Amino acid sequence: MGAQSTSLLESAIAQVAAEVDELFDQLLQVPDDARARLYQAMRHAAIGGGKRLRPLLVIATASIFNVSRVYAVRAGTAVEAIHVYSLVHDDLPCMDDDDLRRGKPTVHKAFDEATAVLAGDSLHALAFEILADAATHPDPFTRSELIATLATASGPSGMAGGQMMDLEAEKSSFDLPTVTRLQALKTGALIAASVEMGAILGHVPPEGRTHLRGYARDIGLAFQIVDDIMDVEGDEALAGKALHKDADAGKATFVSLMGLERAKQQAGMLVEQSVSHLAGYGHEADLLRAIARYVLERDR
Amino acid sequence: MGAQSTSLLESAIAQVAAEVDELFDQLLQVPDDARARLYQAMRHAAIGGGKRLRPLLVIATASIFNVSRVYAVRAGTAVEAIHVYSLVHDDLPCMDDDDLRRGKPTVHKAFDEATAVLAGDSLHALAFEILADAATHPDPFTRSELIATLATASGPSGMAGGQMMDLEAEKSSFDLPTVTRLQALKTGALIAASVEMGAILGHVPPEGRTHLRGYARDIGLAFQIVDDIMDVEGDEALAGKALHKDADAGKATFVSLMGLERAKQQAGMLVEQSVSHLAGYGHEADLLRAIARYVLERDR
Repeated sequence: MGAQSTSLLESAIAQVAAEVDELFDQLLQVPDDARARLYQAMRHAAIGGGKRLRPLLVIATASIFNVSRVYAVRAGTAVEAIHVYSLVHDDLPCMDDDDLRRGKPTVHKAFDEATAVLAGDSLHALAFEILADAATHPDPFTRSELIATLATASGPSGMAGGQMMDLEAEKSSFDLPTVTRLQALKTGALIAASVEMGAILGHVPPEGRTHLRGYARDIGLAFQIVDDIMDVEGDEALAGKALHKDADAGKATFVSLMGLERAKQQAGMLVEQSVSHLAGYGHEADLLRAIARYVLERDR
Repeated sequence: MGAQSTSLLESAIAQVAAEVDELFDQLLQVPDDARARLYQAMRHAAIGGGKRLRPLLVIATASIFNVSRVYAVRAGTAVEAIHVYSLVHDDLPCMDDDDLRRGKPTVHKAFDEATAVLAGDSLHALAFEILADAATHPDPFTRSELIATLATASGPSGMAGGQMMDLEAEKSSFDLPTVTRLQALKTGALIAASVEMGAILGHVPPEGRTHLRGYARDIGLAFQIVDDIMDVEGDEALAGKALHKDADAGKATFVSLMGLERAKQQAGMLVEQSVSHLAGYGHEADLLRAIARYVLERDR
């Protein structure tokens, strides 16, 4: 990656992280009553952590179409609220039972399980509160389209469905097409929704979104392959979460099914392919290109 | 209650129950892949049970304004999806740890805890999928208003906030104003949202909703007082869930704070007051009146 696109990406990441944190901080002011603990848990989960890849994708896509930044930041924060709720629930003892997330204790460790369930549920509702608010877009049709996209991507036919498949993966031995489908739902659906929501904010009609959808599908898959590679090769301190869990659980992953070398090649190929979908765009899509390359290199 | 309003109510309850079940059945067709278990758990929780009070309120309110029944049933089913998800999560071992719900094993008993977390999350997303769909209302502004109302009522400033207060109630000794506030959030917010959504579907502007809001606030509170009375006096087999839990947990309730007799008087007074808010409406509001009286008598 050239120095120029690195700095474009780095400043974009820093800016988006600050904007998302600021909006969460605004929306999650701790009330002076018995709900305080719930808001504290939501803040613990939502503020100050993560790469904010999903808001970055919403904002980078929206910026191609000169969407007002305020709208893109709000829509991106809604997607991030969904992502964060899914992490809080995924970390629960009855799910992945993780103690560490983004370098901090998980919500059920820092608070307790019941609070973690409610904090996840509350972040889930918050996502739709944000999107239904006229501040996210003055046009109600656009808001409805954003909401439909996010609800479908996060529900049983998307992310939650993928998480269910992931639970079943411990009992079955999935083949490569099944693992690909699992990941397309579990992480791919929300990544695809992020790009889609940027296009919706840009009033791009569905038939004009084909290339952006191709880009999103490819980086979503590359992202998950790199995740599987990091699970084998990564450094827990750097990742801020427990690794090597898939192998321990005997789950089929891209690495277990393809081998480490082929998985790396495949991830690289997918990133190049994702960038090729953007050939019709000029410099206005440079941030999306830089994000694609970052997906590949984030394990370094 | 007169025989006429009983039969009006009974046939309305039966019809709404069938309509809600039919829509859930349609929306939750079990896919032929590893997500099957998730959909089965959602169906277990959502289909064939409960009084469907919230959809009934949406539909009864919407019918005052001659709203197309299809819209009202869809909006009511969205509220019910939120209610059902909250029951599934509330029953989890880390929350209320209940084995029985609506006369059936709870989802984590019939399936497992992880599936129950995901089934709840999926029903939560489904609610917003339903509302964002143009089939719920052709006007996107109306859809956005429905979504904002439901998201706010179910999130941390509504239902989830009330559940958090309820968890804290085991540690603190709440006074009557605090218990009233807790219940206004925990159950009142979603009951109020049901009536509000009926009015939204009827294109009633916010300033025209004052009496309906008064009605909803009063029956919401009456509903919870009756719930506390049933927790003391009720029959577990009839209720289809565990009772006497509040007293066992040492939680302050309307009954523990007011005494049984005063609680009964208060519930009766609230129901009469809720009906008085409907004085400006004619026979078109008879179903809402019958629902109010049913809230009081459901413990018989």
